[in-house]
Amino acid sequence: MLPRGRPRALGAAALLLLLGLTLLLGPFLSGGDPERERREPGGPARAPGCARCLLTPRVPSDGQLRGEPSAGLGDHNRSACAPQPPLPPKCEVLHVAIVCAGHNSSRDVVTLMKSLLFYRKNPLHLHLVTDAVARSILGTLFHTWMVPSVLVSFYDAQELKPQISWIPNKHYSGLYGLMKLVLPLALPPSLARVIVLDTDVTFASDIAELWALFAHFSGVILLRLDRLRQAGWEQMWKLTARRVLLTLPATSLADQDIFNAVIKEHPGLVRALPCVWNVQLSDHTLAEGCYSEASDLKVIHWNSPKKLRVKNKHADFFRNLYLTFLGYDGKLLRREIFGCPSQPLPGAEQLQQALAQLDEEDPCFEFRQQQLTVHRVHITFLPHEPPPPRPHDVTLVAQLSMDRLQMLEALCRHWPGPMSLALYLTDAEAQQFLHFVEASPVLSARQDVAYHVVYRDGSLYPVNQLRNVALAQALTPYVFLSDIDFLPAYSLYDYLRASIEQLELGSRRKAALVVPAFETLRYRFSFPSSKAELLDLLDTGTLYTFRYHEWPRGHAPTDYTRWREAQVPYRVQWAADYEPYVVVPRDCPRYDPRFVGFGWNKVAHIMELDAQEYELLVLPEAFTIHLPHAPSLDLSRFRSSSDYRACLRALKEEFHQDLSRSYGASALKYLTALQQPQSQARAP
Amino acid sequence: MLPRGRPRALGAAALLLLLGLTLLLGPFLSGGDPERERREPGGPARAPGCARCLLTPRVPSDGQLRGEPSAGLGDHNRSACAPQPPLPPKCEVLHVAIVCAGHNSSRDVVTLMKSLLFYRKNPLHLHLVTDAVARSILGTLFHTWMVPSVLVSFYDAQELKPQISWIPNKHYSGLYGLMKLVLPLALPPSLARVIVLDTDVTFASDIAELWALFAHFSGVILLRLDRLRQAGWEQMWKLTARRVLLTLPATSLADQDIFNAVIKEHPGLVRALPCVWNVQLSDHTLAEGCYSEASDLKVIHWNSPKKLRVKNKHADFFRNLYLTFLGYDGKLLRREIFGCPSQPLPGAEQLQQALAQLDEEDPCFEFRQQQLTVHRVHITFLPHEPPPPRPHDVTLVAQLSMDRLQMLEALCRHWPGPMSLALYLTDAEAQQFLHFVEASPVLSARQDVAYHVVYRDGSLYPVNQLRNVALAQALTPYVFLSDIDFLPAYSLYDYLRASIEQLELGSRRKAALVVPAFETLRYRFSFPSSKAELLDLLDTGTLYTFRYHEWPRGHAPTDYTRWREAQVPYRVQWAADYEPYVVVPRDCPRYDPRFVGFGWNKVAHIMELDAQEYELLVLPEAFTIHLPHAPSLDLSRFRSSSDYRACLRALKEEFHQDLSRSYGASALKYLTALQQPQSQARAP
Repeated sequence: MLPRGRPRALGAAALLLLLGLTLLLGPFLSGGDPERERREPGGPARAPGCARCLLTPRVPSDGQLRGEPSAGLGDHNRSACAPQPPLPPKCEVLHVAIVCAGHNSSRDVVTLMKSLLFYRKNPLHLHLVTDAVARSILGTLFHTWMVPSVLVSFYDAQELKPQISWIPNKHYSGLYGLMKLVLPLALPPSLARVIVLDTDVTFASDIAELWALFAHFSGVILLRLDRLRQAGWEQMWKLTARRVLLTLPATSLADQDIFNAVIKEHPGLVRALPCVWNVQLSDHTLAEGCYSEASDLKVIHWNSPKKLRVKNKHADFFRNLYLTFLGYDGKLLRREIFGCPSQPLPGAEQLQQALAQLDEEDPCFEFRQQQLTVHRVHITFLPHEPPPPRPHDVTLVAQLSMDRLQMLEALCRHWPGPMSLALYLTDAEAQQFLHFVEASPVLSARQDVAYHVVYRDGSLYPVNQLRNVALAQALTPYVFLSDIDFLPAYSLYDYLRASIEQLELGSRRKAALVVPAFETLRYRFSFPSSKAELLDLLDTGTLYTFRYHEWPRGHAPTDYTRWREAQVPYRVQWAADYEPYVVVPRDCPRYDPRFVGFGWNKVAHIMELDAQEYELLVLPEAFTIHLPHAPSLDLSRFRSSSDYRACLRALKEEFHQDLSRSYGASALKYLTALQQPQSQARAP
Repeated sequence: MLPRGRPRALGAAALLLLLGLTLLLGPFLSGGDPERERREPGGPARAPGCARCLLTPRVPSDGQLRGEPSAGLGDHNRSACAPQPPLPPKCEVLHVAIVCAGHNSSRDVVTLMKSLLFYRKNPLHLHLVTDAVARSILGTLFHTWMVPSVLVSFYDAQELKPQISWIPNKHYSGLYGLMKLVLPLALPPSLARVIVLDTDVTFASDIAELWALFAHFSGVILLRLDRLRQAGWEQMWKLTARRVLLTLPATSLADQDIFNAVIKEHPGLVRALPCVWNVQLSDHTLAEGCYSEASDLKVIHWNSPKKLRVKNKHADFFRNLYLTFLGYDGKLLRREIFGCPSQPLPGAEQLQQALAQLDEEDPCFEFRQQQLTVHRVHITFLPHEPPPPRPHDVTLVAQLSMDRLQMLEALCRHWPGPMSLALYLTDAEAQQFLHFVEASPVLSARQDVAYHVVYRDGSLYPVNQLRNVALAQALTPYVFLSDIDFLPAYSLYDYLRASIEQLELGSRRKAALVVPAFETLRYRFSFPSSKAELLDLLDTGTLYTFRYHEWPRGHAPTDYTRWREAQVPYRVQWAADYEPYVVVPRDCPRYDPRFVGFGWNKVAHIMELDAQEYELLVLPEAFTIHLPHAPSLDLSRFRSSSDYRACLRALKEEFHQDLSRSYGASALKYLTALQQPQSQARAP
């Protein structure tokens, strides 16, 4: 729930007011207007006829800057209006820099970006200074988000570290905070202006209004990179920092402390932003003086250590704005900027064409549309530690939606190894999921489970796209391709690794190891601790082979009779509709994304494994058991709609045609199997 | 998905531009400024230094009004800025009138209101002209929404009908459209200005900017009610309408036709709004000319008959804005207006106090907070016909969340009578629910099932609040208090009505009729068509009495052994933890809202029935069967958290204290029962 920021040395309130959000720096030396300087700090002349202004940049007096109470801020005189700085031309690109490291800050950046994108009307160029984790998460996110008129550049924080690592610093994140000092160096020399944002802010207005202040305070600017460079910023802050360190040898410095010290030495560098651009919730009275006066809040800064739980009589107001964007469906921000030329997003044009070519009258229209949908993907939504490299390690791969969350704890108990799980969620559900994990000691304890959020879009469950996301993020050489309703034998993880080693899977042998599947129809059920116990439960009718009653063909080739007695792995032959759960090398074929909703999604994958001549080897001690659940809505839909089934038949035929194209004559057997009448469309 | 509007005669595009959204009417006669009139239509002088304006009220030329292309609209010259009309003072109340009738339009109004409230910064006074259905829905909604600084007044459309019913009109909704003609008459004489909105518009900006145009066009105004009345509007439109009818005897008139005709006769009445205030999606080219120029879209008008499916190369942009508010969590709009005195909402102050008095360290804090939560309620979310009055009719009452939607079809097959169902949903889920019902022939065919949406808020399932909403909306003299996971015997509805009549329930006898409950643990299961069949299934172990394995106490007093043989209703005695499913008169006690999440919610209700001396009569031919489902997350939480269970114990004790207070010594037996050690906290 709470955006997590780094702990921060809360220097003087007045300086935080300047810098907590936005660096408003600019040397006089190079073009400042001292006349204007003297004119403005007391506030502009009041325009008596102006009842309320769209933009009210009030410049606090020096006293206010130091946090002293002032008549100007507190007098509730609402008729004061500054002249409106003109907004930038509609197609002008605004530059924004953000420093971001780690899983939690990456989540914060998403919410910040949603609020920024919701109100913005200009093209944006984001300059993200990131560590490897944030680079990977945000890279995938922005790539799949496909927001028009947003360019993203990444800068490697690792490379900048030498510039600041000499500064004593206690916190991991503190080092990333210090990165702001080197932005003039890190960002391209051609870039003259940039707005620097902390990750814990929420916009309540168009960032163009903030950008406009660059012009308004001519010579007094928001991170005017060009002028800072001219003024020798690099030398300036380093000298100051070294000097401060001489007198404070025992403490560590946060970025804020250094900014404060530099500004103290060079007061002309700084101009205050109107307070509405940095409404901080840590200081109750000062903030309230600002917004009750201003009526138009621009930016909220969650800089209290209590974050959303901050006590403030208007806390609900701020929380609601934050929650608005936390739960906001980010795909709705795929809005173009009218009338500006925009660089086409990679792949977006082909996608648009493919979508445009779809025939709305085609009964499979919805299926084809779903297949073409690019879902936003937030990989490793929660903190995750990649498993150490081990040659025979296996990752359990599965996908789920909200209604299967309650499976996760049991799954963690049954599978002590790494997992890569794709979750199909709305933005709001992703937050519920976060709370669910935080509230569960079992789940919080596991750092080797990677949760990848794929955001919902469309009416059909994109089962194979989800599987492919989870599969692509698996980091071990082998994967166990499972489903979320199955609990593996407690020993399976160890047994699989031993089997992989023994069978020399991957290196010597191109094979898929089959894990025989069973099912129980009971909610309360004592999980068998061995194959012998499982066979007993089978004999007493407490367990069945999977889909024994409804669809035995799906697992018939596994040959359960042989399995009962088997002591060593045995090879089985592919047959129509076979869909076992298998262990394969991570580089196995992907799932075919055309199968959405329910039906045939695993069958097609196994067929492709067979076409690529994977041996199918059944493991004699492996088993996994399906737990009961109410039929999903998609399944009900499949069962009740003949269109749905007809469509699935059409997709199957197209899949076969593609298979023939890829594998030639050897794929003929699949077509023959398809044409047998008993091989009808069905659900898993 | 699609907002439904009424079919509309699409008069001249130019006039729709004026009137589709907002009536911009004002007679010259009374204070108009002809000089200004002549000066402005060509557009104001251009301000060369102004790159982009926050507000660009461009007044189209006459040619543009007629839909002709014009250099002014199409030249993409973005530097033109009109002088900004000052916004109204921040605490000025803005008046908005909306005509709304029926279930579907009431839903549309909610989305419109969300977009309006999201951007507004002024107090609002809504003037809603409604039929009885919309009055009831919107009355409940606004009462429970509790948005500060929003006053709502209702006006009975029925009373206004005689004013317009003489106009030939083909459509039910058309009559409501005509209501706009009589707004100057219907609204209070003291009201001088009002903005009139169709239900199918979405705001993309602060309505204060629209209100500001009242001032900008001095003498040329948005529904200046005062001046319209002065000018004799009533007579004016009626005369015109009669005259038009003489020449068009065969057709019917929509409001738009009459407005068009009046304006043709009195062109001075009208002033065009800047086109950004009415971006219509029916006319592609004209609208695009407007918004690609304006960059700041203010209002989108979904006036194409295709609504959201409209073909427009920017359709995604508009759809996304609409969907933003469709799925927006309305509770986040409970934001106060800073610095304005506001009338306290009824009950809001006590609620605030009660919430403020809660102790955050209390382990039951979350429970107590949930109990005090006022959920937004949208009664009869879908079209509904109240059942005809029948003296022994019974409504099935139940509550559910998204994960039980798949029960609805089966329930409809088992219960052919009226139902009142409370659904606990997010705003986004409410839309999914709508599609689910529309896609189901079984559900769409039923007009006697009332769905009441209670919007989610908080982490604990407010089971008893939901039951009370469904119970309060039941319209028959009797109710069957069921749960969503149960399917009643096919004959139950008829049998209950016959039993009620026979037993003279309610009039002669204060009793609760017990419907014995059973359960199956199997997904596929052939529902018994008679008591005899049910007994067979019991004997073969396909069915059990409800919670036979986990919690037999819950239904033990029903005495299933006696029931097997019973031919006539028999009386049973209350015992601790008894929680049968019962049929009672509609005026039975409400459920105690302190029980949230899971546990003890029905037990407490049955205890209260017993305290009020309801006889408990078991019906010999009645039965209902619980279907299996995966344990809900709340239940898992109950089972795993000792705090949760401790808290439930505390709530039970408080309930008993209250019971003793209400019923005196006779309630002692409940306390004794509670203190028996076996009566522990448990889940239903």
